[in-house]
Amino acid sequence: MTTKSAYGGVLVPAITPVSQDLTPDRAAFVDHCKWLLDQGATGLAIFGTTSEANSFSADERRALLDHLVDSGVPADVLMPGTGACSVTESVEVTRHALSRGVTRTLMLPPFYYKGVSDDGLFRFYSEVIQRVGDDRLNLYLYHIPPMSQTPLSLDLVERLINAYPNTVVGLKDSSGDWSNTKALIERFPGFQVFPGSEAFMLDALRIGGVGCITATGNVNVKGISALYRAWQTDQADAMNETMVTIRKAIQAYPMVPALKFILAHFKGNESLATVRPPLVPLAQDKGKALLADLEKIDFTL
Amino acid sequence: MTTKSAYGGVLVPAITPVSQDLTPDRAAFVDHCKWLLDQGATGLAIFGTTSEANSFSADERRALLDHLVDSGVPADVLMPGTGACSVTESVEVTRHALSRGVTRTLMLPPFYYKGVSDDGLFRFYSEVIQRVGDDRLNLYLYHIPPMSQTPLSLDLVERLINAYPNTVVGLKDSSGDWSNTKALIERFPGFQVFPGSEAFMLDALRIGGVGCITATGNVNVKGISALYRAWQTDQADAMNETMVTIRKAIQAYPMVPALKFILAHFKGNESLATVRPPLVPLAQDKGKALLADLEKIDFTL
Repeated sequence: MTTKSAYGGVLVPAITPVSQDLTPDRAAFVDHCKWLLDQGATGLAIFGTTSEANSFSADERRALLDHLVDSGVPADVLMPGTGACSVTESVEVTRHALSRGVTRTLMLPPFYYKGVSDDGLFRFYSEVIQRVGDDRLNLYLYHIPPMSQTPLSLDLVERLINAYPNTVVGLKDSSGDWSNTKALIERFPGFQVFPGSEAFMLDALRIGGVGCITATGNVNVKGISALYRAWQTDQADAMNETMVTIRKAIQAYPMVPALKFILAHFKGNESLATVRPPLVPLAQDKGKALLADLEKIDFTL
Repeated sequence: MTTKSAYGGVLVPAITPVSQDLTPDRAAFVDHCKWLLDQGATGLAIFGTTSEANSFSADERRALLDHLVDSGVPADVLMPGTGACSVTESVEVTRHALSRGVTRTLMLPPFYYKGVSDDGLFRFYSEVIQRVGDDRLNLYLYHIPPMSQTPLSLDLVERLINAYPNTVVGLKDSSGDWSNTKALIERFPGFQVFPGSEAFMLDALRIGGVGCITATGNVNVKGISALYRAWQTDQADAMNETMVTIRKAIQAYPMVPALKFILAHFKGNESLATVRPPLVPLAQDKGKALLADLEKIDFTL
């Protein structure tokens, strides 16, 4: 249905470094983003769950995006999160992204009210799309019921694709439920479905998925990208196994603090381990255990 | 523990009128707030759940507060919601309220991440309080697990009271769980506990609660305030029964759309029934059924 070209690959929801006083560390953010691209990331899904996006105000997120683009990170590798609880904030940050040449955004549903209807969610996305009013926009729906507590049903996705075929072009599925990812891929051919974990990437690619957008890409984008490139080869299953082993070692710990701890350790910058509340940094003893777990599987950055 | 004077009464989380194009209807908002005060509201807990606060951007909420104060609504009757998912937004809107002479705010916990620790929530509120850095602030915690999915445990409340006795002076309990409200009142004498429903007000007042902050106050603040004034009289139980009958008739429908529908009907202003997505307006047939239910119990505005 879409007139836009296909897109896919390994996107990383880049962590957002903060200084110990909790202000965004802009220099460290740019460094991390450029390093991820050097390591093979197809794109950067900045301002996602792993980025602690909602722990930053809209103004802070706009300023960070400006700084990233001004620092030479190409707009066309970015897929910022621009969902919000209000139509107005979502429109503002989406328009701002477009004004900087960013044409892909990943959009959470409004996540304060619970038990809202598909009609209400359709109306929300509709209002945002119509108010943004920009044909360049590629909107990716963000299905992450463990956090949003607001699932995007298959029927809702279908309504949105039918109403806005040139805009609603894909979805990130962070449900952790393979049967849902599979159903999306099978029901909507051409719709760009990204599993929210590399553990589902190979299976997804084999039936028409387009890659993945995954938290652990912050520390293992090299391994995940290698599998993405080699998924049709004989090595794919073995590579997949190694990659999933690394993921499992990390996800035994709270994900965002663990990723920031790993980066702080291997990059020799203690401050990188800082998280904004309500998250808490990984305790030193847990951090040491995590590093020991990674050593056992020969993982380094 | 607090050096501030006691406070209590019937506070209304005023609905936020929007025009049919979804922009805030500032004139209707001022009219509604003044009408609620005329009808006997002690205060206005603007920008709460019933106000669809999170469906408005921080900028929109700031502008509405400015307009309300500029229109002559006294700052000392206001208790705006100033919680947000980010420390930074919460600090900004709290400081703004203080700059307009508003010293009471009702503060949601950050509500995006789920399963966060008491340590993380303590750190969040701590950061906000320290960054606001204003002794005038009276912070009321907002415990509303059905929406926030982020409960405030009794132990967390205790830690916050102990750390900031002059600031953390009260709580709105919208858990709908009387045993929690009772435990809060009994465990923290002098702490101002407002049940989130008038159905619990009389029981709460009898053991040391200080009133209520209730959605249905938007249409029945007269009845609720009458009971608040008469709670120690022989008429209290009968008045309570009538009041609860009215609440039950309304809460059989989706609360915010139902309240806006009732106001639109009785005030002869159809536009008042408009809600922002993700909520949806009450369908006409449901609205008629609601009005019939209210007629049966002789309720008019």
